[in-house]
Amino acid sequence: MTENHPLPRETPPSEAAPSVRGIGTADRSKERLARAALSRLMEPQDAAGLALVQAAGAVDGLRIAIGELLPGPELEQEVSSLLVDSGVSAAWAGLAAALRRWAPRIPNLAPDRDLATMQRLGGRMIIPGDPMWPAQLADLGLHEPLCLWWRGLEVEFPPLRRVVALVGSRDSTSYGASVTGDFAYGLGQRGYSVVSGGAYGIDAHAHRGALTGGTSDMPTIAVMAGGVDRYYPSGNEDLLRAVANQGSVIAEVPPGSAPTRYRFLQRNRIIAALAGVTVVVEARWRSGALNTAHHAESIGRGVATVPGSIHSANSAGCHRLLRDGGAVCVTDVGEIAELAGSSGEALAADKESDASDHDGLTLEDLILLDALPVRSTSSVEKLAVVAGLSPESVRAGLGRLGLLGLAVSVGGAWKRSGKRG
Amino acid sequence: MTENHPLPRETPPSEAAPSVRGIGTADRSKERLARAALSRLMEPQDAAGLALVQAAGAVDGLRIAIGELLPGPELEQEVSSLLVDSGVSAAWAGLAAALRRWAPRIPNLAPDRDLATMQRLGGRMIIPGDPMWPAQLADLGLHEPLCLWWRGLEVEFPPLRRVVALVGSRDSTSYGASVTGDFAYGLGQRGYSVVSGGAYGIDAHAHRGALTGGTSDMPTIAVMAGGVDRYYPSGNEDLLRAVANQGSVIAEVPPGSAPTRYRFLQRNRIIAALAGVTVVVEARWRSGALNTAHHAESIGRGVATVPGSIHSANSAGCHRLLRDGGAVCVTDVGEIAELAGSSGEALAADKESDASDHDGLTLEDLILLDALPVRSTSSVEKLAVVAGLSPESVRAGLGRLGLLGLAVSVGGAWKRSGKRG
Repeated sequence: MTENHPLPRETPPSEAAPSVRGIGTADRSKERLARAALSRLMEPQDAAGLALVQAAGAVDGLRIAIGELLPGPELEQEVSSLLVDSGVSAAWAGLAAALRRWAPRIPNLAPDRDLATMQRLGGRMIIPGDPMWPAQLADLGLHEPLCLWWRGLEVEFPPLRRVVALVGSRDSTSYGASVTGDFAYGLGQRGYSVVSGGAYGIDAHAHRGALTGGTSDMPTIAVMAGGVDRYYPSGNEDLLRAVANQGSVIAEVPPGSAPTRYRFLQRNRIIAALAGVTVVVEARWRSGALNTAHHAESIGRGVATVPGSIHSANSAGCHRLLRDGGAVCVTDVGEIAELAGSSGEALAADKESDASDHDGLTLEDLILLDALPVRSTSSVEKLAVVAGLSPESVRAGLGRLGLLGLAVSVGGAWKRSGKRG
Repeated sequence: MTENHPLPRETPPSEAAPSVRGIGTADRSKERLARAALSRLMEPQDAAGLALVQAAGAVDGLRIAIGELLPGPELEQEVSSLLVDSGVSAAWAGLAAALRRWAPRIPNLAPDRDLATMQRLGGRMIIPGDPMWPAQLADLGLHEPLCLWWRGLEVEFPPLRRVVALVGSRDSTSYGASVTGDFAYGLGQRGYSVVSGGAYGIDAHAHRGALTGGTSDMPTIAVMAGGVDRYYPSGNEDLLRAVANQGSVIAEVPPGSAPTRYRFLQRNRIIAALAGVTVVVEARWRSGALNTAHHAESIGRGVATVPGSIHSANSAGCHRLLRDGGAVCVTDVGEIAELAGSSGEALAADKESDASDHDGLTLEDLILLDALPVRSTSSVEKLAVVAGLSPESVRAGLGRLGLLGLAVSVGGAWKRSGKRG
């Protein structure tokens, strides 16, 4: 913690101390500050951290996370139960491991500075319970974001049934571009809001169409994998600025955060949760858009996809979704609107989290892989800070990535190996 | 009945006579001749006729049909039960009405002539139980064809799991042509047989691909709506001759029969029943290929379709099938082979026949509409012969078609009205 925000210090309670639950009633601004800090301390969907916040509240959760308060056995038990109940993989399960994971980032915490940054950018940070908070994110359960860093209009978020996610390949074809543009424009004309990422290709065409055709108060929303202080990728800077001016650009990670692969995958759950239906317009056989579709399915949202030529690799992922029965075939705006309208009725709450097997790596290893430099090398300590993992986890993870040929040690420091970009 | 084949005459039994079932054991050639005659007397899927044959056998069924034998009350009851059990629409239900319907065609019966015609063409006529009879047609239950008029190789018919139907639009696009050709060729290479109609477009491309790539004993089969003495349409004459030389060209209607719209629709059930999976490659929103798909579904066969551009009207029917959940999305030969292999396990025997609502007309009215000339006019008596309906039915049907604006009376004779081509 920096000195800018002196959190109330307190002696760690003895082992016999009562559970921290209910200690002190944090006011709104304390809560906001604590969530801002936690969102920098933890990676998105850090299940142990989210369970801790749910069990102890954000303010005391932060105090435990930064070592100001010791969790009682009752709290540890509650965190454990929450994790088991939500089917979280073993990698995230231990609170003790989580504390070690968070430790390297504690010195860099400066939530007041982050909030000031947002204010300077004309934006804000919102937390559950704020008037602008999208109510539909509650369907993520334990995996609801701690907060959202927000650039854009200060209007109420449209309800689930009025939001459609249009997602797909970065390298869209002219077919994908035209379909996405038509859909976004048509949905905008019917008063729907469009949500997508901020990437080239389908994402960009979705925002362009929605900005042109949009008639709702918030015609389009870009959910970013990195901090909203930067418009990334730079080729979309003008477009994303327009989205922020006429709609919203949001992220769950604080300003300055890099858009790592791990964060892209977690970001997808927010896109899926905001929209009544997720439409995959174009996707290769393996595509991030399919990940968004699976997120949508896992929380009972509608999933749709657009058929295309069987000769187009950019439709192979869409046809895969159709074949697996995971998506409805849509060919026009009317069919999408119909799906969006009927959404939100069936919450598949019993589905297990599928967050543990992206590309066959554990979450921790994926985070670590993202943190590994490609050209230069990095030390275990530096990697711990960047990845938000304990030095022990980094060492163990580097060993696993090394065995898979994904990381290589060069004179005691580490870099990424050729196999993955 | 012509004099060429004097059927044994017999005095009609009294009302107290025993049921005809079991009377006499017709030998194979009598059975063949009877079925040849019945196939000219009745339109395909004439349910009352098929039930009569099932209840009385083909030989006695024919004798009843031509008025040589009176059906006892027990037989009438059995025919009724068979019809109700198979969910046949009221239009076909009465045996008495059926007898009136068949009467106008009796004078033209000449089964020996028809069999001779087939022999002259190098073909044959086969009936259930013959070695070449496709066993999978039994899944049609009551709607199994009485016989098949056959031009082509004299080899055993491939089993269900080795036959794939490729069907679709006559006015196929280059996309549909290339996909069909690739599929048929690839299936042929894997030893599958292809079945389709004899039309331009997808049908023709299916046969061409199968003739080129085929490796099985019977690489391709064309199921015709009209008699196999003519290769129809004439533009496909060379192709269909090649199909007959290297595969088979078959029909359930005797030589000389015109390919009416009604017969096209009934023909589709044979295509669907022969194949383990029916693949709709390209189809408009309303297309005969969808009718084949529904036939396939109704007897528990696999149904698949090929996705395409949402901007192509020729894929709209395919997307409709995908959207309705009636078809699996397939994009290559491997996926089709997989479906064909798993076919034939789930017979949806409880599905009602959907034969009564094509285009909103009853079967009889559709047959009558097909028989109505477009430019010239026709008398009720002539229509009765062409349509195979009783003069009373023709009069009633003309009244209904007139009310719908589909038929018009010109000086006491009838012709088709403008609304339908």
